Amino acid sequence: MATAQGQPWALHPDRALPAEPGVRALAREIYAQTAPLPIVAMHGHVAAADIRNNAGFGDPTELLIIPDHYLIRMLVSQGYSHEELGVVPQDSARAVGPVETDHRLIWRRFAENWKLFRGTPTRYWLEHELGEIFGVTAELSATTADAIYDQLTEQLARPEFHIQPLFDTFKIEILSTTDAPDASLEDHEALARAGWGERVVPTFRPDALFYPHTHSWRAHVDSLGERSGVDTSDYDGYLAALKQRRSAFIAAGARASDHGHLSANTEPLDLAQARWLFRDAQVAPLSAADSDAFAAHMLFESARMALDDGLVMQLHTGVVRNHSPHMLDSYGTDVGFDIPRTAEFTEGLRPLLSAFGHEPGFRLILFTVDESTYSRELAPIAGAYPSVKLGAPWWFLDSPHGMARFRRLTTETAGFYNTSGFVDDTRAFASIPARHDLARRVDAGYLAGLVAEYRLPLEEAIETAVDLAYRLPRESYARRDGGAQ
Amino acid sequence: MATAQGQPWALHPDRALPAEPGVRALAREIYAQTAPLPIVAMHGHVAAADIRNNAGFGDPTELLIIPDHYLIRMLVSQGYSHEELGVVPQDSARAVGPVETDHRLIWRRFAENWKLFRGTPTRYWLEHELGEIFGVTAELSATTADAIYDQLTEQLARPEFHIQPLFDTFKIEILSTTDAPDASLEDHEALARAGWGERVVPTFRPDALFYPHTHSWRAHVDSLGERSGVDTSDYDGYLAALKQRRSAFIAAGARASDHGHLSANTEPLDLAQARWLFRDAQVAPLSAADSDAFAAHMLFESARMALDDGLVMQLHTGVVRNHSPHMLDSYGTDVGFDIPRTAEFTEGLRPLLSAFGHEPGFRLILFTVDESTYSRELAPIAGAYPSVKLGAPWWFLDSPHGMARFRRLTTETAGFYNTSGFVDDTRAFASIPARHDLARRVDAGYLAGLVAEYRLPLEEAIETAVDLAYRLPRESYARRDGGAQ
Amino acid sequence: MATAQGQPWALHPDRALPAEPGVRALAREIYAQTAPLPIVAMHGHVAAADIRNNAGFGDPTELLIIPDHYLIRMLVSQGYSHEELGVVPQDSARAVGPVETDHRLIWRRFAENWKLFRGTPTRYWLEHELGEIFGVTAELSATTADAIYDQLTEQLARPEFHIQPLFDTFKIEILSTTDAPDASLEDHEALARAGWGERVVPTFRPDALFYPHTHSWRAHVDSLGERSGVDTSDYDGYLAALKQRRSAFIAAGARASDHGHLSANTEPLDLAQARWLFRDAQVAPLSAADSDAFAAHMLFESARMALDDGLVMQLHTGVVRNHSPHMLDSYGTDVGFDIPRTAEFTEGLRPLLSAFGHEPGFRLILFTVDESTYSRELAPIAGAYPSVKLGAPWWFLDSPHGMARFRRLTTETAGFYNTSGFVDDTRAFASIPARHDLARRVDAGYLAGLVAEYRLPLEEAIETAVDLAYRLPRESYARRDGGAQ
Repeated sequence: MATAQGQPWALHPDRALPAEPGVRALAREIYAQTAPLPIVAMHGHVAAADIRNNAGFGDPTELLIIPDHYLIRMLVSQGYSHEELGVVPQDSARAVGPVETDHRLIWRRFAENWKLFRGTPTRYWLEHELGEIFGVTAELSATTADAIYDQLTEQLARPEFHIQPLFDTFKIEILSTTDAPDASLEDHEALARAGWGERVVPTFRPDALFYPHTHSWRAHVDSLGERSGVDTSDYDGYLAALKQRRSAFIAAGARASDHGHLSANTEPLDLAQARWLFRDAQVAPLSAADSDAFAAHMLFESARMALDDGLVMQLHTGVVRNHSPHMLDSYGTDVGFDIPRTAEFTEGLRPLLSAFGHEPGFRLILFTVDESTYSRELAPIAGAYPSVKLGAPWWFLDSPHGMARFRRLTTETAGFYNTSGFVDDTRAFASIPARHDLARRVDAGYLAGLVAEYRLPLEEAIETAVDLAYRLPRESYARRDGGAQ
Repeated sequence: MATAQGQPWALHPDRALPAEPGVRALAREIYAQTAPLPIVAMHGHVAAADIRNNAGFGDPTELLIIPDHYLIRMLVSQGYSHEELGVVPQDSARAVGPVETDHRLIWRRFAENWKLFRGTPTRYWLEHELGEIFGVTAELSATTADAIYDQLTEQLARPEFHIQPLFDTFKIEILSTTDAPDASLEDHEALARAGWGERVVPTFRPDALFYPHTHSWRAHVDSLGERSGVDTSDYDGYLAALKQRRSAFIAAGARASDHGHLSANTEPLDLAQARWLFRDAQVAPLSAADSDAFAAHMLFESARMALDDGLVMQLHTGVVRNHSPHMLDSYGTDVGFDIPRTAEFTEGLRPLLSAFGHEPGFRLILFTVDESTYSRELAPIAGAYPSVKLGAPWWFLDSPHGMARFRRLTTETAGFYNTSGFVDDTRAFASIPARHDLARRVDAGYLAGLVAEYRLPLEEAIETAVDLAYRLPRESYARRDGGAQ
Repeated sequence: MATAQGQPWALHPDRALPAEPGVRALAREIYAQTAPLPIVAMHGHVAAADIRNNAGFGDPTELLIIPDHYLIRMLVSQGYSHEELGVVPQDSARAVGPVETDHRLIWRRFAENWKLFRGTPTRYWLEHELGEIFGVTAELSATTADAIYDQLTEQLARPEFHIQPLFDTFKIEILSTTDAPDASLEDHEALARAGWGERVVPTFRPDALFYPHTHSWRAHVDSLGERSGVDTSDYDGYLAALKQRRSAFIAAGARASDHGHLSANTEPLDLAQARWLFRDAQVAPLSAADSDAFAAHMLFESARMALDDGLVMQLHTGVVRNHSPHMLDSYGTDVGFDIPRTAEFTEGLRPLLSAFGHEPGFRLILFTVDESTYSRELAPIAGAYPSVKLGAPWWFLDSPHGMARFRRLTTETAGFYNTSGFVDDTRAFASIPARHDLARRVDAGYLAGLVAEYRLPLEEAIETAVDLAYRLPRESYARRDGGAQ
């Protein structure tokens, strides 16, 4: 397999490093020190059951297309239906056509539209996966689609392409899953019994319990009660049950909780109000305003619990989930129709930071998709409050220019050491090395720029790069007793 | 005529390409493929009557200074009065001094203040016009002002500097004008009879009919009724008249409607409410809030009409028109005192996109002057909804760094193919080639950067550049039946 | 003293210039013309009394650490208490431990944490001070901390390191202090008698008098009455007293007033309302909403006064002061816990600009820490209204990338000549040359980029650089009669 020019296709060793030759040479030196480091993946959406079961990945389309909302959304944005891409609608009555089941055909569709991904991180990640993991030596195109499909199919059938051996191949030292409070954690327990307890840890994600405007809220609270063995019919029991589950998560290795809220509002309610809203919500879903007030209160309470039990608190805000009701009704959540809007941290976090922001035991990591907050709010907050670190560029911003902007817009105020180091936040297991590799290249490029402008000696740049790639994520998510080290 | 160093002044062939030699060489290769392409100018403010009449441009000051609000605003910002620059006040009682009628003197004033335009696109455009169109070989300055004025005056008198032959000189393949719904379209009809029907097309711009807080609204509605022959005394007739005029525009070649709204709110009213507001507005101007609600509703209705008749819907939001009441009272609209404010798309467009965003026949092109929405809202929306494309950087952002930021902030999420390609949006006919040329250079530079960082092969970069310069604007504004191809 | 490689440490002459060799060579040529220019420091927070008294700076920790909230906030953000850094709490009952009085130990703590400042302007400034002012030839580190401390201590004891001779060393041509309206101005008068009247001038900062929601407001108004000799028991007297003090400031050399408001709202009250709010405030602090309305009104009135008396009006907005009540209660104001939030200028300034924005005698300089307003609001406003100039990048944005973004985001719309030239706004006297030097380097780099892209000839770039470094701040803050020239 070869490129148009007759040369076999290969990833260029200098890809995503700065173009200017002097800066590139420095970046290469820095990257050489971080490229071989293990991967610390402290936030993601890989299923613990798949790891426990050492699952395979199916065919190339099942691995790379159908579950990847980055890919699906781009093809949908150009007129494909989800069905044409193999996505099964929730409600067959809403299907706009038959669901394509010929996965080779879907792969061809994707390959024919490869140009849509020019300049996107999706292209970078996918080329990395094809080249590094599968050893593909042809550029993806309509012409090469079938041959690549065959090559991947053949490889995916081998035992070394199941998930457990790939932990070693990818040098994943530790990986966090994301789990509901009522999760049984039995997969994590089984993994621990198998000696994987330090390698796969859960994350406590209570969002569904914090927004009582949904009809499903009551069922989630009931399920929390069942799992915890604590009566959740009143607010005090609900709090106690949350604490119980946090303890269970910690016992299963959890390092952090995660909170996905539309707003960063953390204004607490007084106890009577909280109890009263909880009681009302037992009867019927709350209004949007009341539900938001309850959610803000529960962020505040989560910080209080974090101070107590030592879980790191992660906050992801500013995304309108399921922007398209049509897509939600047809295909459910996480199909590419979540759209960000303005975020606000300075006023929103003030109650929480006033109460807990100076407490030595409290740790808060902030994520956003609103870049206007980087220099205006986030870097000043992280550069002042000892409890706060900035997470890595998130979601759409986990991209070459996006990551470079994050460094340019936050470093001058917050420095490097008030950031968490790289966090990949992916559902796509096979893309983890590509994402970490890209982050290491972009950070190497940024640091090389400082060296080239005589703002930092090379040896300090290298130390910083290693910290960003490895040491900071280890430390940022360390057990408070230091157990992660 | 010569520069200070004694060399004749000339535009540098590498202007506005990246400075780094390796990237520049790549950019040069890419630009070489787009430089000779025809111009597709799908949105602008050139008067159809001028084209029909093959108008000349008067003297250099009438061509380049008095009608250009970019130029006038900059000189006014440094203390000149509009009168000193030859702009005639609407109300002579408000004039701050005599209107300068010596156009050579105004030209000198401008030349003496040439330094104000350093680093602005105005300077780039004007140098391009002087060098490329008029063959000027001296740098503009107080010293050379008179000689250049004479050279331009002499040339502007020649028949080849009238507007129709310049279509060929500039390689303008198609140009859209912007027209009120009650426009007679007789200029377009005459142009069509003369064989220019595919080359000059109207655009349907109904803003004046959508905001019933103005005293003039009623007159616009009456005029719509007269032109359409439909009784517009009630809401249903008003809708029918709008549809009738859209059809007439389509018959005259129109590809698109255009909407300039302060907000992107598209919340529809129920029918009774809409009828009731319309009835009220017949009696007296509505409150600002009611008028805004009606305008939002009419955006929603315009999308419904667009789905029906196939006109592309263009939305330009976020500009406070006539920020200075003093300037408005003295000189009227479009004199440089329109100031942007924050834009919001995620919530605002939700009603419209929920209703029409997934319809295969609907097309929406979005423009903004609030760059904070690029990565946060616009790219995620365009990268998901099949109906949405991002327009080119608009107004103040149609500039070298502005265009580069647009690509950097949107491409990684939306790719290149969810953008419309270049749209110039100018009143200044003679600046059209300069604006397209600059866009082609900046896009070449951006793509060259991807090539230099081994993120895109050169041949793909070239194909993309050609798409952005030519194919995408053709396709984005194609007749729904494909008639533009 | 030497670096790890055995070479003596020295500031690199090309530091903070662009990395690309061609652009760097151009930047070097431009910077060479601005490096030797005198310093015009038209806004800052150096105490006039210290200048009058030719104060020394104490030991290195007293000079460089304890009073620098950039340094303190960074160390606090990593877990140090203010006490450990030598900061004395306001209320000893709130101290979290003993206040460290061993300044050498504090210096060591700082040196051990030097890596926290990688990539920040603090590092740039401090290295500049160590290298240029103190002739240090070792890189700061835990190893070299003591030796550098000794060297600085020895030098700070010498007469030439007192503040008055440093004016000459630093080539400070003029420096503005910031002073409350009830300041006696006796230090300025004494300086004037000593021949320093053109070199040190006050700035009128009335914020404390404009926000009647505080308990201290009444005392400030009374003090204003005492100092002015005008009865401030009613609103009319309060206005008259403000005018009287502005005149006294002008007599003492003042060029400008300065206003630090959370919002840029300038909506005036009618006279009856203003009198009524003032009367109410005499009795008890106003509500936050009433206080904000009064403050907006007083911005409007300040513009009216400025038109009358010729003081330049400076407006700094968008910072939530004392975000952490814990820090405020413990250590008071200005300890690093001021956090920006969104700013808005387009609507906020409209009343003021409508009334005064076109008046030839009125001058307004705008500062922000919300970069999203640069291209969206500030550049369009400054590029239209003759009264408005954009101040330099402020606070956290007074940094290499921050300054580069300011130019990239404002120049294409407003040009260079609607900006004020560099304004340092520092409390740290010894950092003034470093800050101006960095600004000159970054502007040289930006201009060199324009030259390298053939958008500006080198001689024009040099003229512009000199204007930005020297001529524009002189002119922007000139006495209206031109007395600054």
